[in-house]
Amino acid sequence: MTKSYTLAVDTLGSETQLKDICHGLNLSLERNINFKFNVFGVTNEIKKAISDYKLLSSAIEIIDCDEFVNMSDIPSEAIKDKKNSSMARAVTSVALRESDALLSFGNTGALMTFSLLNLKTFKGIKRPAIASIWPNLRGESIVLDLGANTKKDTRYILDNALLGSSLASILFQIEDPSIGLLNVGSEENKGSDEIKEASDKLKELSKNSVINYRGFVEGNDISIGKTNVIVTDGFTGNVALKTAEGTANMVQKNFKNAFDSSFLSRLGYLFSSIAMKSVKDRLDPRVHNCGILMGLNSLVVKCHGSSEFKGVAYAADIIYSLLANNVNEKIDAYLRKVNNIPNN
Amino acid sequence: MTKSYTLAVDTLGSETQLKDICHGLNLSLERNINFKFNVFGVTNEIKKAISDYKLLSSAIEIIDCDEFVNMSDIPSEAIKDKKNSSMARAVTSVALRESDALLSFGNTGALMTFSLLNLKTFKGIKRPAIASIWPNLRGESIVLDLGANTKKDTRYILDNALLGSSLASILFQIEDPSIGLLNVGSEENKGSDEIKEASDKLKELSKNSVINYRGFVEGNDISIGKTNVIVTDGFTGNVALKTAEGTANMVQKNFKNAFDSSFLSRLGYLFSSIAMKSVKDRLDPRVHNCGILMGLNSLVVKCHGSSEFKGVAYAADIIYSLLANNVNEKIDAYLRKVNNIPNN
Repeated sequence: MTKSYTLAVDTLGSETQLKDICHGLNLSLERNINFKFNVFGVTNEIKKAISDYKLLSSAIEIIDCDEFVNMSDIPSEAIKDKKNSSMARAVTSVALRESDALLSFGNTGALMTFSLLNLKTFKGIKRPAIASIWPNLRGESIVLDLGANTKKDTRYILDNALLGSSLASILFQIEDPSIGLLNVGSEENKGSDEIKEASDKLKELSKNSVINYRGFVEGNDISIGKTNVIVTDGFTGNVALKTAEGTANMVQKNFKNAFDSSFLSRLGYLFSSIAMKSVKDRLDPRVHNCGILMGLNSLVVKCHGSSEFKGVAYAADIIYSLLANNVNEKIDAYLRKVNNIPNN
Repeated sequence: MTKSYTLAVDTLGSETQLKDICHGLNLSLERNINFKFNVFGVTNEIKKAISDYKLLSSAIEIIDCDEFVNMSDIPSEAIKDKKNSSMARAVTSVALRESDALLSFGNTGALMTFSLLNLKTFKGIKRPAIASIWPNLRGESIVLDLGANTKKDTRYILDNALLGSSLASILFQIEDPSIGLLNVGSEENKGSDEIKEASDKLKELSKNSVINYRGFVEGNDISIGKTNVIVTDGFTGNVALKTAEGTANMVQKNFKNAFDSSFLSRLGYLFSSIAMKSVKDRLDPRVHNCGILMGLNSLVVKCHGSSEFKGVAYAADIIYSLLANNVNEKIDAYLRKVNNIPNN
């Protein structure tokens, strides 16, 4: 019998519509037939939303919640005041092994804080990081940290390199993913003392064949796809991610305006519209933006706060593929090997 | 008689072609008839390149140099070893008031170091910053620092806010440019202690009506055009700029591939090609990427290392407009007022 995987889904506290969540989960379920779902939210509304999705109805358990964490809540207050929120209860269900992984669309800081309190970090990892799958000209790469730790700290950079490398090897099925460290230039003399120190330590790990470190990369190297993994601190990563999203939106709007500028251009758009749509989908953050909370010994994924059904399905597919690949066991084994930690 | 302005142009040490430099300068001269140029480079080659541009030939003085700073040179070594380079001599001509401003396409770090050594910073400014004019959905904004100071330091952030505000007021001809501080979220509780401290100090200056500070902005707010000025440290700004460039390139390549994907799409492209070309020009970093070294009491501008003639003309136009607007006197007066420094 094939193993089944249960995903806890926190449906409250974001702009993502329940109908998009249900549509997306149903789509993913069609592709990953052994998926089950513990869905946290308002029972009546969930029942109404799943009525169109027969397949999903057979694979879902609803856990009634009406309390939720707001996007504007301060994480340290949310963990005291919102113990019965959909987010808190979804995290608890993972901690109690009632669910194998968690998908949320809500407050990232609160999700990180609830997860840190209730789930353990891997041995050898100090703080989790947020990783994302970034489209580039060659395919995709892993970028982390996108906002979990805004402090620049050599230790976090090393953790991020190890976590990113193990995620890339599982997701992209490559043995030795190349790693770049984000800096203001690719030459060795560029950047602050901390970043040079981090680079020296990564070089040492690379010399011992633990990782495949390729040195500094610059902002434009992310889209070029120069390395499989790009490592940075959470402040820089967060700004880079949002700047890229904003730029992609602006360029697309400029193209749209160009298409609208004359009769001939509008005709041109009609002829090209199918191909244009595929570009839009490929770059739309509502479809592709999901952040994986790396470093926890359970899989927690945060999706864009205004995701559409395709984004929900994309995130659920990734979670399924990671669970089916025993992501946590593999990362744990990898970190123990790298850090010379004996198995339990 | 209208005043004339002399621009020192460093033509060596980059991938920018001499014919693009001459073409661009000639274009700008057609629009700014009182421009003159001190051009530093190899005499024979410059003479050959200007032979097509009669107007430029009448407004140019050639200063023969064959030594140059390489892109890979370490700034601290270049200032010792390359004292006769085109860059060093161009900076000196500004220091000696033989030129009113400087345009270079070469090594940014070396340009900054030569400028710092030979030109003075404004009273009240500790370190110069690199500012750029960034296209957004509403028009343009000023973003700084893009890589001059990679250390996070509250003092630099305040300097950058004052410099950016005065540049925006001159370039965009607005009285009270809005300023945003780049952070990982727009809520007050987001970010590191240093960035919160900088924000508090900016709020104080804003309360006293010195500047128009609007609080934190996020990466995507740059393209939205939420504020006229976006202030950040040089590390984050450099990564954001290059990430935006890379993303714009990737999106455009995706569109190109989409156009190539079928006969209908190719036909559509033909119909839309003029409008498409205007978008490409608007976003092309080879056209728009020039960095203004802010904080020096003379105008120094660094253009993209592989600029095309349109980029050269664009940079020269901006320099002319800033000189004609007495940018240095205005910034100096502004900083003296803000910092309560008496006039000389």
